[in-house]
Amino acid sequence: MGCTGLIGQQFVRMLNNHPCFELVALTSSSRSAGKKYKQAMNWAVGGDIPEMAKEMEVLETRPKYLLQCEPKIVFSALPSFLAEPIERFLRSQGIFVFSNASSHRWDEDVPILIPEINPDHLEIVRQQLSRDKGFIVTNSNCSTSGLVMVLKPLERFGIRSATVTTYQSISGAGRRGLPAMEIEANIIPFIKDEEQKIERESKKILGRIEKKKIIPNDVPINASCCRVPVREGHLMSVVIELKENVEVRNVAKALSAFKGAPQEMRLPTAPECPLIVMNEEDRPQPVLDVHAGWPERARGMAVTIGRIREKARNINLFLLVHNLVRGAAGTCILSAEFVLRKNLIG
Amino acid sequence: MGCTGLIGQQFVRMLNNHPCFELVALTSSSRSAGKKYKQAMNWAVGGDIPEMAKEMEVLETRPKYLLQCEPKIVFSALPSFLAEPIERFLRSQGIFVFSNASSHRWDEDVPILIPEINPDHLEIVRQQLSRDKGFIVTNSNCSTSGLVMVLKPLERFGIRSATVTTYQSISGAGRRGLPAMEIEANIIPFIKDEEQKIERESKKILGRIEKKKIIPNDVPINASCCRVPVREGHLMSVVIELKENVEVRNVAKALSAFKGAPQEMRLPTAPECPLIVMNEEDRPQPVLDVHAGWPERARGMAVTIGRIREKARNINLFLLVHNLVRGAAGTCILSAEFVLRKNLIG
Amino acid sequence: MGCTGLIGQQFVRMLNNHPCFELVALTSSSRSAGKKYKQAMNWAVGGDIPEMAKEMEVLETRPKYLLQCEPKIVFSALPSFLAEPIERFLRSQGIFVFSNASSHRWDEDVPILIPEINPDHLEIVRQQLSRDKGFIVTNSNCSTSGLVMVLKPLERFGIRSATVTTYQSISGAGRRGLPAMEIEANIIPFIKDEEQKIERESKKILGRIEKKKIIPNDVPINASCCRVPVREGHLMSVVIELKENVEVRNVAKALSAFKGAPQEMRLPTAPECPLIVMNEEDRPQPVLDVHAGWPERARGMAVTIGRIREKARNINLFLLVHNLVRGAAGTCILSAEFVLRKNLIG
Amino acid sequence: MGCTGLIGQQFVRMLNNHPCFELVALTSSSRSAGKKYKQAMNWAVGGDIPEMAKEMEVLETRPKYLLQCEPKIVFSALPSFLAEPIERFLRSQGIFVFSNASSHRWDEDVPILIPEINPDHLEIVRQQLSRDKGFIVTNSNCSTSGLVMVLKPLERFGIRSATVTTYQSISGAGRRGLPAMEIEANIIPFIKDEEQKIERESKKILGRIEKKKIIPNDVPINASCCRVPVREGHLMSVVIELKENVEVRNVAKALSAFKGAPQEMRLPTAPECPLIVMNEEDRPQPVLDVHAGWPERARGMAVTIGRIREKARNINLFLLVHNLVRGAAGTCILSAEFVLRKNLIG
Repeated sequence: MGCTGLIGQQFVRMLNNHPCFELVALTSSSRSAGKKYKQAMNWAVGGDIPEMAKEMEVLETRPKYLLQCEPKIVFSALPSFLAEPIERFLRSQGIFVFSNASSHRWDEDVPILIPEINPDHLEIVRQQLSRDKGFIVTNSNCSTSGLVMVLKPLERFGIRSATVTTYQSISGAGRRGLPAMEIEANIIPFIKDEEQKIERESKKILGRIEKKKIIPNDVPINASCCRVPVREGHLMSVVIELKENVEVRNVAKALSAFKGAPQEMRLPTAPECPLIVMNEEDRPQPVLDVHAGWPERARGMAVTIGRIREKARNINLFLLVHNLVRGAAGTCILSAEFVLRKNLIG
Repeated sequence: MGCTGLIGQQFVRMLNNHPCFELVALTSSSRSAGKKYKQAMNWAVGGDIPEMAKEMEVLETRPKYLLQCEPKIVFSALPSFLAEPIERFLRSQGIFVFSNASSHRWDEDVPILIPEINPDHLEIVRQQLSRDKGFIVTNSNCSTSGLVMVLKPLERFGIRSATVTTYQSISGAGRRGLPAMEIEANIIPFIKDEEQKIERESKKILGRIEKKKIIPNDVPINASCCRVPVREGHLMSVVIELKENVEVRNVAKALSAFKGAPQEMRLPTAPECPLIVMNEEDRPQPVLDVHAGWPERARGMAVTIGRIREKARNINLFLLVHNLVRGAAGTCILSAEFVLRKNLIG
Repeated sequence: MGCTGLIGQQFVRMLNNHPCFELVALTSSSRSAGKKYKQAMNWAVGGDIPEMAKEMEVLETRPKYLLQCEPKIVFSALPSFLAEPIERFLRSQGIFVFSNASSHRWDEDVPILIPEINPDHLEIVRQQLSRDKGFIVTNSNCSTSGLVMVLKPLERFGIRSATVTTYQSISGAGRRGLPAMEIEANIIPFIKDEEQKIERESKKILGRIEKKKIIPNDVPINASCCRVPVREGHLMSVVIELKENVEVRNVAKALSAFKGAPQEMRLPTAPECPLIVMNEEDRPQPVLDVHAGWPERARGMAVTIGRIREKARNINLFLLVHNLVRGAAGTCILSAEFVLRKNLIG
Repeated sequence: MGCTGLIGQQFVRMLNNHPCFELVALTSSSRSAGKKYKQAMNWAVGGDIPEMAKEMEVLETRPKYLLQCEPKIVFSALPSFLAEPIERFLRSQGIFVFSNASSHRWDEDVPILIPEINPDHLEIVRQQLSRDKGFIVTNSNCSTSGLVMVLKPLERFGIRSATVTTYQSISGAGRRGLPAMEIEANIIPFIKDEEQKIERESKKILGRIEKKKIIPNDVPINASCCRVPVREGHLMSVVIELKENVEVRNVAKALSAFKGAPQEMRLPTAPECPLIVMNEEDRPQPVLDVHAGWPERARGMAVTIGRIREKARNINLFLLVHNLVRGAAGTCILSAEFVLRKNLIG
């Protein structure tokens, strides 16, 4: 759902020749509905439009059209105000919804799932299943995903607080979300709701399950967000206050060595190394590193990290996350792979 | 009218402390109406918001509100679909409308006036005055204005044809007209209707008056237009086929020496030299030269020209025009000054 | 030779797992010599540094070091002033040099080869072989390659003249060739020697062989060149004056259907369709289309064309060429494949 | 000295028609020496080249040429490695040197002077005068100047620490310092020595004089610096940990109300309000706000501040400083005005 936007395009690209999923329908707003997919937008996510999708007719995003296609799983790249009722309805119809929209992230029984970080949170979808035949699993905000990927392996050192400052690319505002005159050769020190999302979502994702509920983490996160004239990839400067002094090389080691459930399960979209520490003095850079990740199917799924520095008890570092892939479509697909392997999809 | 857009802002900037005109009202769409001007937009045309306008309340663009302010002259930076009926109505109410909108450019009795180029075309507004108490004078398309400024002084050499290729800045698409993802580090080889406007408007502007009608010029113009990631200023490569071989220095001399009616009349917004020929091998450049023009009030009113080259009978050159000033608000104001001096405004 | 620059990187990328060529040595200036290839530069041409090259030690560009590696073929991405003597010397030592440098392009017995366009020009290297054991084959200037690819199939309609105006990306100036302050949000209407190269090289490439000499084509080419803030890909507006009126669809057909020797021979780096005509009203665009070309190995080898328009006897169109691939490394490699298939390399 | 670079150009621009200083000589490297100033570079700092400088012949930066012009004051925009011996020599010859170079910033008897912040530090130049007939006064690094301007008025609330993350424009790297391919549509998370300069210089500037020595401030500053594709203006996100909770409005009030010695003395280049707090949710922005400062002569001398937010005991805010004006030439000139008024220049 929402196949013509940048995240929708990434979904189509990443679902191409997928070993577990088969594309049965594409939906979009009424403006593009009825067109062949290849004519519904300018393909802007690299390579060619996948053959399987090129000639598919785009449906309008209405539940009844979707249900006629009898999907088991729906990936949602809808704007939030649309997503809320549609995703809820689809769930009630026994569909498993993996959503990039923010509308259900705060439902008590809906996890914000990043399979490397909080695979145990999947547990709470059972509460949805006790009520509905389907469920909704959400994705975090794009910046949050990069941040928690780096915080998780450092929890062993004891994190007192984290200060994060972002350099977010224009693709994060969507295909038509940001006027060129506002950002050309400029920086905008404001992204609506973004700082709150980072601060709040990271607490839920890093929270622990207790009595079938997610108890949010209480490490204070202080976020400041800017839009920068870059096409893809959110760079972030992070200052992490630790409970004790830790050497840079131990931080680097903890990050490089990090693996999660998707790596152990060898899920198709899991990058072999989810965190890549770069030694060059001037990396990561969006243009050079945004597509990090291996194997091929996991391009854009690795978070790159550089310039790890120790300042008293603070660890400073830069990280780069592909906002449309690891920060959106890619993690949604990885979550679906994970759920499938967990036999939660009948 | 239309005071919050980029051209509207230029109007306000250029009308500040104007020796002939006093600002009595500002209008915009209902979104900004009711706000103080300083809160109605991000001021993006340099310097500070003029004191006189800062605290003015913006009116909604409706004729009745405007008429209550009893203006003599209205400058219009409305989108064309809105401009057509409003400008016509205002004229019927005895108002003198100077418009940057394209809606009336093709009316038989409405000139596309550039006072340096076709001051004699003002004549035809008398036909409007025979019917209405006011009249409409239009401005050309922004690219056209740069082109004809350069073609006019070369007519003496006999022009067979002209081929023009543009590098047009994003401000030409308006404050919110172009999504950042489309143009960031990119070129778009298409601007809707622009090539036709250049080809057709330049013929009307360079036409001659015969029996009170404008007989369009018949020199073929071949235009190709691109949008480029530049904030302000349209650069254009022009190849002019002449009837005979002319030396580069004679072309340069004809251009540099050019003066028109506004210069002779010393109109407030007239640049001393409307055409500035640069000798550097790599100029004009938008960032360095877009504000050319002297005195202070005429900043952005001069067209800069460089790299004049002779190839067989062709003269190649680059020109740069400030699309929001010479190509829009500035020429409108210059036309009003010219009309005022001609005693056509009672 | 010259492996750390952008064109050198493209050579390495395109020679990875090449079915005909094996990489035996990499050279660069003394600044990088002695380092492992992966440490010698920031890899900036997409994907990862090929495994085979990553750990190779970079040699300094000196003939004696090169000869010790006993290469049969040398690909040269040297700056011209260095290339002249080194390439000549290597030829004298029986090496087959495929060069992107301009230094030998005007030698009488050296072709500027684009295998789709002038495969018959290869003939003249025999004159080099009568004197030396090796030979030099050159590549055209990056913009020229795009232009002649489009002119060649239109020769059947009779070309009277062509006017070309370029939008050239910053990568064309090399990795460190252009200061950011000069081009950020700006256009520079000057590229040293570029217009002359386009005008002159296209005549040689489109020339015919007569008595073992290349007789240059005499169609006048009028070029105007600008640098634009785009990373990769040179967009060009071309106006082609034909001897007769030709319908747009026939022009489109002639371009789409074009195939040359590399396509017939199914050379590894040959794109199936060297010219791709796009029907969208706003294409080709550098960001979206620069990597056109199929199969995978031929990415960036296809020239995309759009907005074909008829104006009197002129055909207007836009074309986009990947300046580092089709305009440089890719055509060099294609030429080597072609020469190999022609059994000219012992 | 160093008149062709961007900071040198700003010096020339700001010294135009200066009420206290008269320009007697311009120097640059041998590349430009001997040329008229107007031909020695592309003027890139707005407006026209001042008439007084246009036709001046540029001298090579050698002390003997300079001394022949008998200047009382020398403004230095030299690169540091050149500045060290030349500035020292000029001082020994009785010249008062105001330098933007970093070479003497750490001399015990040389202040890093920002007249609004540490006017009392001027005191220590007397130690130079006890030895030499002239003295050297330095300027801080461009980012540092913005940071300390904001920290100073907040000292009353007790500052525990500050974390600063920068978005620095390409002009900070000089006219030719940064290749376009590295920064186009990209971010570089590294600026050589910048973080150390910010952390160290701010401590000296905010230090107190004790027994004729500067005792550095001991508030820990944690800096992370990035280069962004913006032409002018360094934006910075600052998180300031205070000793107690302070309301946002009180922070805003303290900043807005701040005045220093230059304001009291009404120095020509002093902005009326050195700190401007903006209320809009998305400001300051480099393109819109970099030239803040009033009156005309003080354009670019005001630091703009926005998005002041309270998070526990932290105050978050964004600030924007014109790196070439307040961060370089402007503060140098302001210092000279201040010194002159203090009667320290005979």
